[in-house]
Amino acid sequence: MGTIAEQILQDATGEAVSPGEIVEAPVDLAFGHDMTLPPAIDAFDCLDVETVFDPERTVVIPDHLVPPPDERSAELYRECEEFARRHDLVFYPQGQQGQEHVVLPEDGHIRPGEIVVGADSHSCTHGALGAYATGVGSTDLAFAMAFGWLWLRVPETTRVEYTGTTGAWITGKDLVLATLAELGADGAVYHALEFGGPALADLPMDDRFSIANMAVEAGATTGLVEPDERTTEYVRDRLDESEARTYYTPTDDATYAEQLTIDCTDLEPQVAVPSQPDAVAPLSDLDAVTVDQVVIGSCTNGRRRDMKRAASVLEGRTVADGVRLIVTPGSQAVKQTCLEKGWLETFLAAGTTVESPGCGACFGKRTGVLGENEVAVSTTNRNFPGRMGAPSSEVYLTSPFVAAASAVTGELTAPAALDALPEVS
Amino acid sequence: MGTIAEQILQDATGEAVSPGEIVEAPVDLAFGHDMTLPPAIDAFDCLDVETVFDPERTVVIPDHLVPPPDERSAELYRECEEFARRHDLVFYPQGQQGQEHVVLPEDGHIRPGEIVVGADSHSCTHGALGAYATGVGSTDLAFAMAFGWLWLRVPETTRVEYTGTTGAWITGKDLVLATLAELGADGAVYHALEFGGPALADLPMDDRFSIANMAVEAGATTGLVEPDERTTEYVRDRLDESEARTYYTPTDDATYAEQLTIDCTDLEPQVAVPSQPDAVAPLSDLDAVTVDQVVIGSCTNGRRRDMKRAASVLEGRTVADGVRLIVTPGSQAVKQTCLEKGWLETFLAAGTTVESPGCGACFGKRTGVLGENEVAVSTTNRNFPGRMGAPSSEVYLTSPFVAAASAVTGELTAPAALDALPEVS
Repeated sequence: MGTIAEQILQDATGEAVSPGEIVEAPVDLAFGHDMTLPPAIDAFDCLDVETVFDPERTVVIPDHLVPPPDERSAELYRECEEFARRHDLVFYPQGQQGQEHVVLPEDGHIRPGEIVVGADSHSCTHGALGAYATGVGSTDLAFAMAFGWLWLRVPETTRVEYTGTTGAWITGKDLVLATLAELGADGAVYHALEFGGPALADLPMDDRFSIANMAVEAGATTGLVEPDERTTEYVRDRLDESEARTYYTPTDDATYAEQLTIDCTDLEPQVAVPSQPDAVAPLSDLDAVTVDQVVIGSCTNGRRRDMKRAASVLEGRTVADGVRLIVTPGSQAVKQTCLEKGWLETFLAAGTTVESPGCGACFGKRTGVLGENEVAVSTTNRNFPGRMGAPSSEVYLTSPFVAAASAVTGELTAPAALDALPEVS
Repeated sequence: MGTIAEQILQDATGEAVSPGEIVEAPVDLAFGHDMTLPPAIDAFDCLDVETVFDPERTVVIPDHLVPPPDERSAELYRECEEFARRHDLVFYPQGQQGQEHVVLPEDGHIRPGEIVVGADSHSCTHGALGAYATGVGSTDLAFAMAFGWLWLRVPETTRVEYTGTTGAWITGKDLVLATLAELGADGAVYHALEFGGPALADLPMDDRFSIANMAVEAGATTGLVEPDERTTEYVRDRLDESEARTYYTPTDDATYAEQLTIDCTDLEPQVAVPSQPDAVAPLSDLDAVTVDQVVIGSCTNGRRRDMKRAASVLEGRTVADGVRLIVTPGSQAVKQTCLEKGWLETFLAAGTTVESPGCGACFGKRTGVLGENEVAVSTTNRNFPGRMGAPSSEVYLTSPFVAAASAVTGELTAPAALDALPEVS
């Protein structure tokens, strides 16, 4: 009974729960990366436990500073590797690298209906599969790894209903940006966002990950997409029959703290202008923006559909003079698909720097760091001052369509403004 | 009359020259990268000139810190870009990036018989085409860009003759490492190394670049490979009829400071052990070495033949547990060839991090930086203490064959020690 979040916490704890209550929530999956796990290891080592609660459901994915750009990063990687080996955890070494929020669902680690905690703010991404997924600090991760449970405050739920039909060039990213415009950066603080509605049902899974990924940008603790046939198909392709899963949908009597409806029918490409993810406007409302760098990738938009969209715009075109385009596939498997589908060839032919999977450019480390006063269009999730480099640099957040079109023209550009596009397989 | 180096300087200056003399040498091509050009720009701006001596023969290739790993690197890139635009120079933007010593010959900027100066110690690479190519400091580059000439001391020449026939798995890298073993790190200080002989004539151009590249590791100011039909073919494919070139070979009366003969017939794979490029031994003489990281790429071994060799070893195999393999194609064009030939797929399938072209791992910046006490096998050219990261890390320099085989086994390994290999196209 209740919202998706409430039902998950209720069934997990075996008790009736209500918003505001603090529950001892069993954790099904815990994960960390190379910046958040090392402090968690320090905390873990202070706890009186032999090993982790479940080695098969504790995943270590170095992705922020891989391959290491400096000595300190090399040490962080090694701390992750040693901890994973010591406790026989699931470990993604360099070479099988990828952004954790791309890799985890892709490789079948995320099970609908489970409680997932990750030491990364965008852990809410996995709500796209109907898991209660939330970002925690490193000490919380240490506790969860040690004891397999965490205190969680049962969140209120804000329901977001996407109605109508999305038009050409409109993606999950545009929907979530439009949502942030409505909610604001503090519009859903510690709420669960629950996403549903007919326009969402039309969207492929990769788009739903983009939406859940940015739930935290409204302050939400998790962002749950209502599961449907696309969800079950995605999960079936990745999980054995034996692996538990429960697809929760809200019951009719679910109570929401707030309900928001977004009509997608006439939605235009959306842009978060500097320097907040909720400072969102339709692209057509903006003045001309000259672009120095374009970044396509990240845990928001580094999946196959994102790569395909970028390739569809770049096919037969080249990056504008003076613009630097970086494409970062979200995992080695996504990169492999880019290769097989010919997208990688399209990227290279267009004059793209194709990076190895990793978080790099998104948070201004390792690659694609912006210099003073430089302007980027990026498919990532945050455009805070200095997020991608110099404090004076500026970042516009968009979909892969808009990002690729902007790379071609050198200005923030709607893809519809380009000439007719060939089909891309 | 004389050695190749003497003839080039003689014809360029129009005077008889002899070793030790200082001549005003006209410069045909000048280039710099993102770490050396910015100080050269500062020096250039102090000189009383409007612009460079020849914009079409002044090339700017940011390659050391591209895409920028930090703000300072972003500024260096921008300084390069602005200088190149201001003077209408040949500029390789990010997206058309590549190691300068791979890109320059590949794109037809190097003309045999000309005088080439680059603000990078491995500028001697271009001697593989029979150009007098030498590394200079940033202030010398500034002067050369401004006035189109430089004082050069006419070098003595050391002749290296490669006799016999190279066996399986033996590459130019093995030949030059064997040469460094003989000469020592100070064995040819300010000499021109002149490479020739039947075993060298058998080697493809990519191998010759590897040899010329490491001339500086014996202290040589340039390393000239005697041109032959392979050279003329390589150059014909890249230069117009109108573009001047002269293929110098030594005259019969050439006088050498030293002459060295290396019999290649029984040459085994060579390894430069930590921490000098001239600390070279046959692989079979070495005790077991456990490897943390393998790097394949660089201006020494980042060309098509190198990639093919690495792929031939990695095809159907995977990187050993606990080993991190980084492959860096030397240019976007080389990466494109890797894609077309299926080598890229082989790399990914083996569990390789394929980086965008650039100098990164070789000099311990931007990617693949080694942590404390880590051990790398690398196809790069220098293994000085701390070259690739922590001062306590160690680097073994090898051919791509040995590097790839070592990635597969996790120990320094001769490729012949692996099971039979399938053919790679």
